[in-house]
Amino acid sequence: MNSKIEKLIKQFAKLPRLGSRAAQRIVLNLLQDKTGRALSLANALIDAAETIRPCPVCGVLTDADAGLCEFCRDDARANGQICVVRDLSDVWTLEKSAVFHGRYHILGGLLSGVAGTTPEDLNIKILPDRIKNEKIIEIIFALPNTVEGKTTQHYVVSVIGDIDGVNFSELASGVPLGGDLDYIDDGTLTLAFGGRKTL
Amino acid sequence: MNSKIEKLIKQFAKLPRLGSRAAQRIVLNLLQDKTGRALSLANALIDAAETIRPCPVCGVLTDADAGLCEFCRDDARANGQICVVRDLSDVWTLEKSAVFHGRYHILGGLLSGVAGTTPEDLNIKILPDRIKNEKIIEIIFALPNTVEGKTTQHYVVSVIGDIDGVNFSELASGVPLGGDLDYIDDGTLTLAFGGRKTL
Repeated sequence: MNSKIEKLIKQFAKLPRLGSRAAQRIVLNLLQDKTGRALSLANALIDAAETIRPCPVCGVLTDADAGLCEFCRDDARANGQICVVRDLSDVWTLEKSAVFHGRYHILGGLLSGVAGTTPEDLNIKILPDRIKNEKIIEIIFALPNTVEGKTTQHYVVSVIGDIDGVNFSELASGVPLGGDLDYIDDGTLTLAFGGRKTL
Repeated sequence: MNSKIEKLIKQFAKLPRLGSRAAQRIVLNLLQDKTGRALSLANALIDAAETIRPCPVCGVLTDADAGLCEFCRDDARANGQICVVRDLSDVWTLEKSAVFHGRYHILGGLLSGVAGTTPEDLNIKILPDRIKNEKIIEIIFALPNTVEGKTTQHYVVSVIGDIDGVNFSELASGVPLGGDLDYIDDGTLTLAFGGRKTL
C-alpha cells in the first residue's frame, strides 16, 4: 500500500469509534472524491484547530478572539445556576433538550484511578471564584451516573465546601422514559425504588 | 454551537460509516487534544490529496510523480493475469490474502441503475489495450457477488469480446469457510449445490 495512504489511514484509525477498516473506507472515499472534499475537510480542521480554544471561565470550546464563550457572554444565562458536566458533548446534549437555561462548567474529565485522572487534570479550581463572581445559588451536577461520576461529584462538593445560599443538586436516577423493567439493570431499579414518589 | 465546530462536524458526518454523533465525538476528541493531532491529520490529508492520483493504467491510487503504480511497475507481476475489481479496498483485501500475483484493474464502481452509474463512469475502455500490451491470457473477475456485480461483469466481457487466447474467469460461489448451513441464505445454498464437486 502507498505509504502516504497508509499513514493517513493510521491517523484516521486512531479517532474514537473508528477502526482500521472504517478508516480505510473513509480515506478511499476522500481520495477518490473529485469535488475536493479532502482538502476542504483538511482546511476546516486547520481553521478550527488554530482558532478554537476552551472558554477561560467554563471550558466550552469557542473562538479564541471572542474571549468568553457564547454562554458566559449571554447575560440571559446569568440566572444563578451552574450545571457541572464532564465534557462539551454533554453541553450539546443538554442544549438540544433545552432543559437548562443557566451557565455550564466543563470539568474536562472525571476522577479515575484507572485512567490516572487527578484533581489537577480537571477544571475545578476556578469554581469557587465563579460562585462568588456570578452570584451562583445552585450547582447542578449532570455527571455520568457511574462510580467515577459520583466520586468526582463528591470531590467537587468537598472542594467548594459550605457557602451560604449555595445549593447543590444532582440529576434524578431512575427508570428512563419508555424503559421496560425487563431491560433495566438491578442498580437502576434499586435507585428507582429508593427514590419512588407518592402519587 | 460554535459555527466552525458545527461546520467541521457536518463535514465529518458526511464520511462513510460516520453519523452526526460519531462525528461530534471525533471533532471533540481532535479539538481537545493537546498534542496537535488535528493539525497533523489535516496535513497528512492535504499531502495525500495533492499528490495521490489513480494509476493511468489500472486505477490503483499512487504517488503522481511515480507515474505507474507499484503493481504496473513490477515486472514480476506481469504473469498474464489481470484481476478486475470494483475499487482499491478490494485490491488491499486480495493483497492481504496473497492469493493473486498478477496485475489489477479497478473499475471504480459497478453499473447501477439506482446509483446512475453508466459504462462511461467506469474504467473499462483501456482494458482491450491492456490485454494486447501486457500479453494477458486470463481476466479474473473478483466483483461483488450481487446483481450489480454480475451485470457489470457481463458488460465488461461483452465489451472485450472474443480474443484468441484470452480466458475469462470469476471467483467461485459457495459456502464460506467455517460457514454453518443454518446461517447461509438460499441463494448461496443454491449456488453451492449447483457447483458441488465430486470427491
